[in-house]
Amino acid sequence: MTGSNIPPDHPRAASLRVREAMKDAVAAGLVHPTGLIAHGRGEAFDYLLGETTPPEALEAIHEAAFILRSARRPVLSLNGNVVALAATSALAVAAALPSLRLEVNLFHRTPERMRLLLAAMQAAGATPTQVLGADPDFRIPGLSSDRAQCCKAGIGEADVVLVPLEDGDRCQALKAMGKTVITIDLNPLSRTAQAADVTIVDELTRALPLLEKALRTPPTGGSRKHPVFDNPAILARVRRRMADHLLRAEGSGAAGSPDTGPAARRAKTPG
Amino acid sequence: MTGSNIPPDHPRAASLRVREAMKDAVAAGLVHPTGLIAHGRGEAFDYLLGETTPPEALEAIHEAAFILRSARRPVLSLNGNVVALAATSALAVAAALPSLRLEVNLFHRTPERMRLLLAAMQAAGATPTQVLGADPDFRIPGLSSDRAQCCKAGIGEADVVLVPLEDGDRCQALKAMGKTVITIDLNPLSRTAQAADVTIVDELTRALPLLEKALRTPPTGGSRKHPVFDNPAILARVRRRMADHLLRAEGSGAAGSPDTGPAARRAKTPG
Repeated sequence: MTGSNIPPDHPRAASLRVREAMKDAVAAGLVHPTGLIAHGRGEAFDYLLGETTPPEALEAIHEAAFILRSARRPVLSLNGNVVALAATSALAVAAALPSLRLEVNLFHRTPERMRLLLAAMQAAGATPTQVLGADPDFRIPGLSSDRAQCCKAGIGEADVVLVPLEDGDRCQALKAMGKTVITIDLNPLSRTAQAADVTIVDELTRALPLLEKALRTPPTGGSRKHPVFDNPAILARVRRRMADHLLRAEGSGAAGSPDTGPAARRAKTPG
Repeated sequence: MTGSNIPPDHPRAASLRVREAMKDAVAAGLVHPTGLIAHGRGEAFDYLLGETTPPEALEAIHEAAFILRSARRPVLSLNGNVVALAATSALAVAAALPSLRLEVNLFHRTPERMRLLLAAMQAAGATPTQVLGADPDFRIPGLSSDRAQCCKAGIGEADVVLVPLEDGDRCQALKAMGKTVITIDLNPLSRTAQAADVTIVDELTRALPLLEKALRTPPTGGSRKHPVFDNPAILARVRRRMADHLLRAEGSGAAGSPDTGPAARRAKTPG
């Protein structure tokens, strides 16, 4: 479409192909162009995780599964990036928890984009009425963006909202409504990560299948034995993990090349 | 164009507006959509700098100015993101160093995109023949991407190449040709950052005006007094700075909100 040409021997060919898929989702109208910028921010933080699920995310996923199972009206909120990257995984999570409602809720909202995203969810296997969002009849108080528009039967009356790839002001507005908020966010410093009750610091397509698995695993020992979950402590541990990655020797990072080691290179002045 | 609606009271409204400008540059054909992802990666690392120029970048800028002034055939390589974000600053750097050639060199190369970028540079004040790139007559050895295509009078015969917002394989290919490479890259772990002779870890639109100023400032004391520059040490210090930012208390980070402090929030189980 753009004459792009990713050589198979490029050291980041896999990552470049995901980027091309996201670019195609923009061309298809599913993802807002600024969603690509958000994806890039996530990529950077994922480098600092070593592109693997950290133990802190696993703990948060187990807490999230516990909370979602206990919820009266849990909702999984979808945006363009979530649908583009993980429509099938989102449906698998919903299949693992029959009470879970799905709702498309957009910052950059247009009727056409909403229609395309609902169609994409159906193409991934959703029933025609499974995913809410097309006919908003409720507003999240305190939000001036289009994200305020939602469905009463979904986010409006939810007691627990799972909001992957969130922007911070909605997370805070949902908290102000008294809802329990679970997020999946690669940036442990984001307002969302800090405002949420449970923050899963992991890449979406890695985290959702783990959440599905956790939801399908019967709880052991009853809720009395459920350990106390401390989200600020989880975030502090993830930050420490990312900091350690930054401090590791040159050339050993996920984003570093093994063939550009710590040789004491000096800047040459051209002669 | 997309019905987007950024509320002025959004806590990251300024950043969102830069994102909208980048989105418009994609719509205009200047920036490849995957360039938005690269922009997002930069945003994440810039959070970790506190969105200010660190002292390490200032040292690297002074070394870069010293090397560029000493060069026989220095070239500033431009891509879509550089033109979209900093066309005027790039021309100001060129005005400060008359020997500096400008060349557009693209990973996602099409004749149309090249034409648009050269037109954008002229719109920013370039003379019709000032910016090379339209008629490549040279290939960078060892590169299979379209980026190999360049101009002999520009990158081909350059002794020093300034490559902002680089991808790693070209940086290494230029090094293999024996060239001195200076980069501006917010990711201190990138292959480019580690392979370059001088890495300016800073945001492009902050760094280029500082480089221009350094080029216009006469050197003092002569080259004998020029301090030794140790790029790996500079990168290690920047990584330490970013790690410290990650480890700072919650709510104090550039990406964190001041109103979501370290209160010992606990995940509530919905009742």
